[in-house]
Amino acid sequence: MGSDFFSELRSSSPVQDYLQHLHDLFQQESAGAVADYIPELFKANPDWFGISMVTMDGHVYEVGDTQIPFTIQSISKPFVYGLGLEDHGRTDVLKKIGVEPSGEAFNSISLRPETGQPFNPMINAGAIAATGLVEGSSHEIKFDRILRMFESYCGHELAIDDAIYRSESSTGHRNRAIGYMLRNFGILGEDPTPILENYFRQCAISVTGKDLAVIGATLANAGVNPVTGRQAVRSEYVENILSLMGTCGMYDYAGEWIYKVGMPAKSGVAGGIVAVLPGQLGIGIFSPPLDDRGNSVRGIQACHKISMDFNLHMFNVPNSTGSIIRAVYHGNEVSSDRVRPLDERGFLKEAGKRILIYELQGELNFATAEIVLRKINEAFDSFDFLIINLKRVLHMDESACKLFYSLFLRARGMNKRVVFTHSGDHRILRRCFRHHLNEKDKNIPSQLFIEDAASALEYCENNLLLGHSGSYGGARSSNINQHEFFENLKPDEIKRIQPLLKPMSFEADALIVQAGSEADEIFLLNKGTVSVSVSLPDGRQQRLATFSPGVSFGELALGGSRSRSANIYADESVECCSIALEDFHEFCLTHTEIGIKLMQNVLRLTASRLDSANKAISALA
Amino acid sequence: MGSDFFSELRSSSPVQDYLQHLHDLFQQESAGAVADYIPELFKANPDWFGISMVTMDGHVYEVGDTQIPFTIQSISKPFVYGLGLEDHGRTDVLKKIGVEPSGEAFNSISLRPETGQPFNPMINAGAIAATGLVEGSSHEIKFDRILRMFESYCGHELAIDDAIYRSESSTGHRNRAIGYMLRNFGILGEDPTPILENYFRQCAISVTGKDLAVIGATLANAGVNPVTGRQAVRSEYVENILSLMGTCGMYDYAGEWIYKVGMPAKSGVAGGIVAVLPGQLGIGIFSPPLDDRGNSVRGIQACHKISMDFNLHMFNVPNSTGSIIRAVYHGNEVSSDRVRPLDERGFLKEAGKRILIYELQGELNFATAEIVLRKINEAFDSFDFLIINLKRVLHMDESACKLFYSLFLRARGMNKRVVFTHSGDHRILRRCFRHHLNEKDKNIPSQLFIEDAASALEYCENNLLLGHSGSYGGARSSNINQHEFFENLKPDEIKRIQPLLKPMSFEADALIVQAGSEADEIFLLNKGTVSVSVSLPDGRQQRLATFSPGVSFGELALGGSRSRSANIYADESVECCSIALEDFHEFCLTHTEIGIKLMQNVLRLTASRLDSANKAISALA
Repeated sequence: MGSDFFSELRSSSPVQDYLQHLHDLFQQESAGAVADYIPELFKANPDWFGISMVTMDGHVYEVGDTQIPFTIQSISKPFVYGLGLEDHGRTDVLKKIGVEPSGEAFNSISLRPETGQPFNPMINAGAIAATGLVEGSSHEIKFDRILRMFESYCGHELAIDDAIYRSESSTGHRNRAIGYMLRNFGILGEDPTPILENYFRQCAISVTGKDLAVIGATLANAGVNPVTGRQAVRSEYVENILSLMGTCGMYDYAGEWIYKVGMPAKSGVAGGIVAVLPGQLGIGIFSPPLDDRGNSVRGIQACHKISMDFNLHMFNVPNSTGSIIRAVYHGNEVSSDRVRPLDERGFLKEAGKRILIYELQGELNFATAEIVLRKINEAFDSFDFLIINLKRVLHMDESACKLFYSLFLRARGMNKRVVFTHSGDHRILRRCFRHHLNEKDKNIPSQLFIEDAASALEYCENNLLLGHSGSYGGARSSNINQHEFFENLKPDEIKRIQPLLKPMSFEADALIVQAGSEADEIFLLNKGTVSVSVSLPDGRQQRLATFSPGVSFGELALGGSRSRSANIYADESVECCSIALEDFHEFCLTHTEIGIKLMQNVLRLTASRLDSANKAISALA
Repeated sequence: MGSDFFSELRSSSPVQDYLQHLHDLFQQESAGAVADYIPELFKANPDWFGISMVTMDGHVYEVGDTQIPFTIQSISKPFVYGLGLEDHGRTDVLKKIGVEPSGEAFNSISLRPETGQPFNPMINAGAIAATGLVEGSSHEIKFDRILRMFESYCGHELAIDDAIYRSESSTGHRNRAIGYMLRNFGILGEDPTPILENYFRQCAISVTGKDLAVIGATLANAGVNPVTGRQAVRSEYVENILSLMGTCGMYDYAGEWIYKVGMPAKSGVAGGIVAVLPGQLGIGIFSPPLDDRGNSVRGIQACHKISMDFNLHMFNVPNSTGSIIRAVYHGNEVSSDRVRPLDERGFLKEAGKRILIYELQGELNFATAEIVLRKINEAFDSFDFLIINLKRVLHMDESACKLFYSLFLRARGMNKRVVFTHSGDHRILRRCFRHHLNEKDKNIPSQLFIEDAASALEYCENNLLLGHSGSYGGARSSNINQHEFFENLKPDEIKRIQPLLKPMSFEADALIVQAGSEADEIFLLNKGTVSVSVSLPDGRQQRLATFSPGVSFGELALGGSRSRSANIYADESVECCSIALEDFHEFCLTHTEIGIKLMQNVLRLTASRLDSANKAISALA
């Protein structure tokens, strides 16, 4: 791409512009010839040229003739082989069809002389053997399964081009010869004729350039069609399909293709090419003129240029394992949403160091989990509680689960607790733990998985407090003299303000303060806990904080807030006192010294919450 | 790996334990035979078995005989070919040596009949041709360059096993025949004899199993040795080397190897195998007994099992493009570190929406940049300023830079500003912009790259303010009556407190408040800006916030703080007033109503800073 490409922008999308530019560039190419071994294929217009690209979030780019139907031909081969893998498993399939590149042309017979095993499923012999592997109680049902599979890949119904099918069938003598050779060696266990008819039909399935891009994106997305979200092939076989496309997908041009373009790909004699950049993109190209190896001329040119211009070679993989750890901090840097009384805060300010929190992100596989485990193991003496936050982990594989299981075992052996948060999207983790523990007749320990990160941190804090003083929070009740609101006041000063205190009690779940209501009182919490929450657009309540006995709430009213910004509910049976704002102001005017002390207390509480918030910002950023 | 593997943990590292387990498992394997075509190789002990694994951050795992030296043999082939690519470029090298798998054994002659071009550089013919490509003014210098290259890959000095070299040389008749065939076709342009001697020497370089793992990790890490940090091969050729290892690295077992193990690899006749999982790992195995295709028996078994147990197949790539965007927020949700006067805050609370901030993370390549651009393009009407924060971007390739350049062009055409922060680690981005702009005789616009995210946000805020009122912050001076500290006070109330105000002025860079000093006064800023900063362990000052005229600072002293927590410096010539804390308290006792109002103001300011901090936490989390 010359940098001149950027001198004018035609649309809001530079990728759309680029593909248009590419299309313009190669449209004039006149090399190659439309396949003519059957007359129907030769009817294709050599000017047809479509480029499509589909991203992992299912966005479709299209330029040119991406909606013209053509027959899938050899592009069907790796996918039908994939169905064979689903039906029989790798071991049995490998006995019948090899996976070595033959270095020979697509229509060579290429059977191993002793066994009759086709070299690989991308040559006709291997592809016919693969069609023979598809299960079904009749040949119609077998073909129907093949067609349904392609419909899953494409995301819509597909049809057979009947003229092409009949023409392929009536001229397919060489393939019939191959079929009987396969029968002779026992690679096909039954009459090859109906298998060959299914093979001819599968090659005559009608697709478009856009379809090929979606098919490619489905393989890139571990077998899940990114447009429909539907699984087209079991993900464990995607690596095998891609391996074959990588080593044998482009006939005797496969080595050079991988060397130069670097994407597993498959071409067909009707002019289609599907190329896959695993985890990133699918590309579909349609242009009928072929080179003498049977690959679309414009298809090769366009894929080569896209790959060069955007560094899309599959082995262009920089180290990105370093981004797995999003943040590491301790329970003294970030607190749970629970607002605790002074003495508990003081204790956790120091003891919170024994809670270690790892926030992970991206892809948890062997290499990234290894880094996380190594770093945690280095810090093993420094924590009693370990929280592993999986909220931003997009995908977790079994090897990562196994490594985390070994971490859990080590921690348990040393009386340390591990808590995983946000594991709801990673059922594989729970399944792995359950599996290993069941083998030893053990259950998953309670609180190993806590969905919400704040609850996990609160759980660890509570356990630190329990270990320290035997109780915490709502279980204690606070003496009014020890209330943070009255800090620095002498007992007789507290006595003077006491007449203003109005005792109140609430049942569990009672609404104490309603968002939007007038902020006209301050609350001192004596027993039980209350939670601050806001209503989400969907009606659910999102908890923001929990308050323990000994703390005040609603005190920002003193700064002049007119109305409440959130709801406050009683978590359990609650006892508290309220002070009316009006009374408080009046009191301050007559008891100036006490008033100033109280304002100072509120300011100090607010400043300390500001300080915690700033610390949390540094830890998160 | 049976799950029983986890029933006991032997060390603190599950990976170390696993590799030991693997070693124990295959040590007893007795299949295969030590190479005997030269007597020196046959001296190898068939029990030798070493496994090493090196991660992308340079951590080395080793089990068994990873320190026993052996000769590199054919494992040298892809690397010397890489040196040929560095010396001649892809186009010229491709003219002399093909890249197609031959489907034949390692010692087959495999030259294309018409041109004499070897099929690929992994068979002897292609490897000898590759050795002939290495540049140098003498054959000694050429070999020295080969040796230095391997030393870069391994990270230490290497030696030749002289006995093996002499033995290979004295028996290398077949290779000499190949050399003369290559000379005959002009693939070698000079006498093959010294080239063959260098080839024999290169095969006799002595390495260990650990070395092979480091070599593999170097390829996995885009050519940079992850232990030494030194570049061993230009990263643009790594994809070609890996492609060849992927299609032809394991002789006529290459297809099955990729299908089952799924890592580009190369084996040597002395029993070494190097395997590469791009972006993730390097693996080195040493075990002399070979199968009949010339690959180490235990090496294949161990690699196959590691790959299966930990899902290491290179095509096992789930979609991870979704993690590229770390956070998206607007300038009304997160403010810069600049504490602004009331009216500016009020304006930015609304207008800040026009600043859009994208924090990116991980790998910026075509597929991930495409997602970012598409999302920004969808929001194009909603912003005037766009900040792209690259702090957590680990790597950025040229295609991502090109896409960002097109975004910049589009924004400029619509009078919107784009600012990239933390681009210091991504020189490729600045280079790309400079290149494209130079072609049009334009310079990089000022403030397109602002290193620090807070400064970038401040810059955008300042520009919004400039557009709105023509000036902002330090350029204005504040009328004392409009000071936030005096909000809600009547003019005659302000007049009463005025005698307490002590005017002060400071030169630029003057220290106004020192961390640790007694907190005994409050400051009202009238002109110029001041910055709050803390001293970092290395002595540098880290700015935390900047204050504008009309705001107060040091007011947390009112909450009872005993000492200052940070330094405050004058950014420029500054005018302010101070109020001694003692005077203020005395004043409150005599002017109760005003005192309560002032305390309320301070509480409200603090509460609003707390509110901003909480908003920032939500935006960041």
